[in-house]
Amino acid sequence: MRKTKRRYLLYYWPSIPGRGEFVRLALEDAGAAYTDVARGKNGVSTMMKVMERRHLFAPPFLIHGKTAIAQTANILFYLGPRLGLAPQGEAGRLWLHQQQLTIADWLVEVHDVHHPIGSGLYYEEQKREARRRAADFRASRLPKFLRYFETLERPRGITYLDLSLFQMIEGLRYAFPRAMRKIRHRNLEALHDRVAARPRLAAYLRSERRIPFNEQGIFRHYPELD
Amino acid sequence: MRKTKRRYLLYYWPSIPGRGEFVRLALEDAGAAYTDVARGKNGVSTMMKVMERRHLFAPPFLIHGKTAIAQTANILFYLGPRLGLAPQGEAGRLWLHQQQLTIADWLVEVHDVHHPIGSGLYYEEQKREARRRAADFRASRLPKFLRYFETLERPRGITYLDLSLFQMIEGLRYAFPRAMRKIRHRNLEALHDRVAARPRLAAYLRSERRIPFNEQGIFRHYPELD
Repeated sequence: MRKTKRRYLLYYWPSIPGRGEFVRLALEDAGAAYTDVARGKNGVSTMMKVMERRHLFAPPFLIHGKTAIAQTANILFYLGPRLGLAPQGEAGRLWLHQQQLTIADWLVEVHDVHHPIGSGLYYEEQKREARRRAADFRASRLPKFLRYFETLERPRGITYLDLSLFQMIEGLRYAFPRAMRKIRHRNLEALHDRVAARPRLAAYLRSERRIPFNEQGIFRHYPELD
Repeated sequence: MRKTKRRYLLYYWPSIPGRGEFVRLALEDAGAAYTDVARGKNGVSTMMKVMERRHLFAPPFLIHGKTAIAQTANILFYLGPRLGLAPQGEAGRLWLHQQQLTIADWLVEVHDVHHPIGSGLYYEEQKREARRRAADFRASRLPKFLRYFETLERPRGITYLDLSLFQMIEGLRYAFPRAMRKIRHRNLEALHDRVAARPRLAAYLRSERRIPFNEQGIFRHYPELD
């Protein structure tokens, strides 16, 4: 009997790239068989049911056979060696995961620029505070994270970390085009372009599977915050 | 030749419990041999040098032989099976790590209650915004996280997740005593008491190695925010 690989089921909000996109990029780059469940018919209601039944805190989550995994960085830790996007050994896997966790921290800060008071409130209810937080983010946090990853020595070969850094640069260019032009990050720009040119990813980025950035997501372009 | 176990070197800010405490609780509960480097002579300057040389983003980090590991949840993922505080199998380890990552998210939100605008600014520079964020945290986020962990089915036996939940309850009681009395979380209270009664931890909690909560840390008691 031929061994069949189990299909990956990805669950995430269908209208934004958000955290789901970091998982999607890995699956797409590897050419893995997956279903983006919440983008199908009754997708969100299915997602909410699975989330409750399996006592998961929030999307994204991945179902693979009997395994349910939540938390973006944890999903990538699981997928990495299976998709050929991470080393197999413990030390290399932990190092990569450590970087991904710092990206997760960075992403929270990107989100909180437009939602400094509460994620359950509208942006319009916290615009004044968002302006203050944005000033601090542009002056202090954005340069710190960019410098850290700009000078990080990454292992040879493409990993899910590289795909995630591509997505960070994409999102930051969308949200903060002016601020991004002011901060030097040539290595990350070169990495961005190498990742975008990978054949499977280039095809994906042109496809309808790629959800455009928008003002419901984590990366939002509000000119007054840039 | 007798096999010698390598000593763990923990690096974290010496004046606050903060994120380092989650690692310290695991090391203490297991009776592991470790040095809390930054609390020794010239400790902080040593920590900063090691951090720069190894290109680490932030404390806490752990050095164990040739391995350097940053990110609290990643450190616990590494230590868990070594200290007998996590299952050995992949599925169990990933599940536990997933919960720890949700605790990490929770902790960022606890911090941002008193620092909604920027971690580089003083609390006094963002008091007005902190009041608004605190109201949202008490009304929406704190109940959500407590309910999630209150109803989470944990595996038998003590893991580092249990120790971390103990520390969350400790810190939240310190920072938000009024809010915590209003939200039911009996299972977590019982878990808290079981953890506090473990002989090695009980001795640790009475010792000077345990750093008290204070208004420089993540859990801060500002009556106006409770």
